[in-house]
Amino acid sequence: MRILVTNDDGIKAEGIKQLVSALKSLGEIYVIAPESEKSACGHGITVHHPIKVKKIYFSQDIEAWSVSGTPADCVKLGITTLLKVKPDIVVSGINKGPNLGTDVLYSGTVSGAIEGILHGIPAMAISLNSFSSEDFTGAKIVAQKLCQEMLNKNLAPDTLLNVNVPAISDKEIKGFKVTKLGERKYINNFEHRTDPRGNDYYWLAGQVVPPDKEDEDLDVVAISNNYVSVTPIHFDLTNYRIMKQIKEWGVEKMGI
Amino acid sequence: MRILVTNDDGIKAEGIKQLVSALKSLGEIYVIAPESEKSACGHGITVHHPIKVKKIYFSQDIEAWSVSGTPADCVKLGITTLLKVKPDIVVSGINKGPNLGTDVLYSGTVSGAIEGILHGIPAMAISLNSFSSEDFTGAKIVAQKLCQEMLNKNLAPDTLLNVNVPAISDKEIKGFKVTKLGERKYINNFEHRTDPRGNDYYWLAGQVVPPDKEDEDLDVVAISNNYVSVTPIHFDLTNYRIMKQIKEWGVEKMGI
Repeated sequence: MRILVTNDDGIKAEGIKQLVSALKSLGEIYVIAPESEKSACGHGITVHHPIKVKKIYFSQDIEAWSVSGTPADCVKLGITTLLKVKPDIVVSGINKGPNLGTDVLYSGTVSGAIEGILHGIPAMAISLNSFSSEDFTGAKIVAQKLCQEMLNKNLAPDTLLNVNVPAISDKEIKGFKVTKLGERKYINNFEHRTDPRGNDYYWLAGQVVPPDKEDEDLDVVAISNNYVSVTPIHFDLTNYRIMKQIKEWGVEKMGI
Repeated sequence: MRILVTNDDGIKAEGIKQLVSALKSLGEIYVIAPESEKSACGHGITVHHPIKVKKIYFSQDIEAWSVSGTPADCVKLGITTLLKVKPDIVVSGINKGPNLGTDVLYSGTVSGAIEGILHGIPAMAISLNSFSSEDFTGAKIVAQKLCQEMLNKNLAPDTLLNVNVPAISDKEIKGFKVTKLGERKYINNFEHRTDPRGNDYYWLAGQVVPPDKEDEDLDVVAISNNYVSVTPIHFDLTNYRIMKQIKEWGVEKMGI
């Protein structure tokens, strides 16, 4: 089995090292990851600059490339250009900080995995629900178990699991929940400041509003109840419900 | 009616000027757009840097801000912080170049509009199907007609229309099609080069593969048949179909 590993915290981050060590026993690992942190880059790709690619030493027996682009660039380059054989799975992470609910739209970690399914390769994105914890023990166990499960099953090539792991001891984790994406709401989104020359600037800030629905099917609720949240993700942004409504406006009968 | 206008080609691009001139008669326009080009930034937001914001002159009677971030930053800042009253609609564009099919995932133009519906405000993204044409005549007519329609209807707050306009004379445009997102496939994705110091780099290149399905419901097909393509977009990335399948694996019964 060939596993392509990427992340958005950069190739030197602790999370990707831990991910590789968790998955090593499952197959051949190829690491292609951003040379520096790319958090919140969304599904950005590099169009107007060349992408620099360096073959680097990552750890014994593992081929690795450091890339001057986003996680989506890394996976696209890997699948189409750098790897001689297509990988069987793309795994992105372990991200420091959750990727839950509507925030998934902004996530570089998840976009690396989406690039996998765009190329017909099943993928997993895995994140630890803490920006400060250095303890990846629980997340490693989860990464290994789920990746093994995915490799064992005859998966549809558009299967992407977005996995969030509570940042508690693995003994305290209650188990797995298959979830749907919830809403992530923030208050006080921006902090306004003025620089010494009188220019305005803003920092994205904001505190997460706790989920108001106690629907255990939501990722945001599952994680707050100490479950590992496993959400299947797709890339079809078509809103079929509204399609019908817009047709009923008679848009197609309007002239230009 | 208050209309928040953004784009990803930057506040000085011709497309946003043309968009504002097309929408002026419909209500009060507020322009909040990136100070420089942000194409293909996906749904990126600026987390690790401050966002500089400058009030600038755009055109008579129009308030405008230039922002050192992405289209998503612009709309988020506008709705939560800069505008005193929430806008009734967010319009993003007119983009130079199409935003069709799976490419929508990479689109800064569309992400500006998605940020609108994330905040409960209907939105439209509009793109011209050419990277070189300077003729926005057809796109202006379309922008005005559809925006007027959207303001007239009692729209669900999560209504986002992704609109692509053929780059032909407005007389030749055949009409409107309500579509779903197709696939955008490329061949020869990257060009490999070596710099004078022997370092490898890659340019994202790639030619679009013509759509193989003649399904007129697909955006990629509608536009190639000289129709304006109107695709409703949502932000729920949950793959409900696969949710059931993953549950059937017994994931929820697995221990950690």
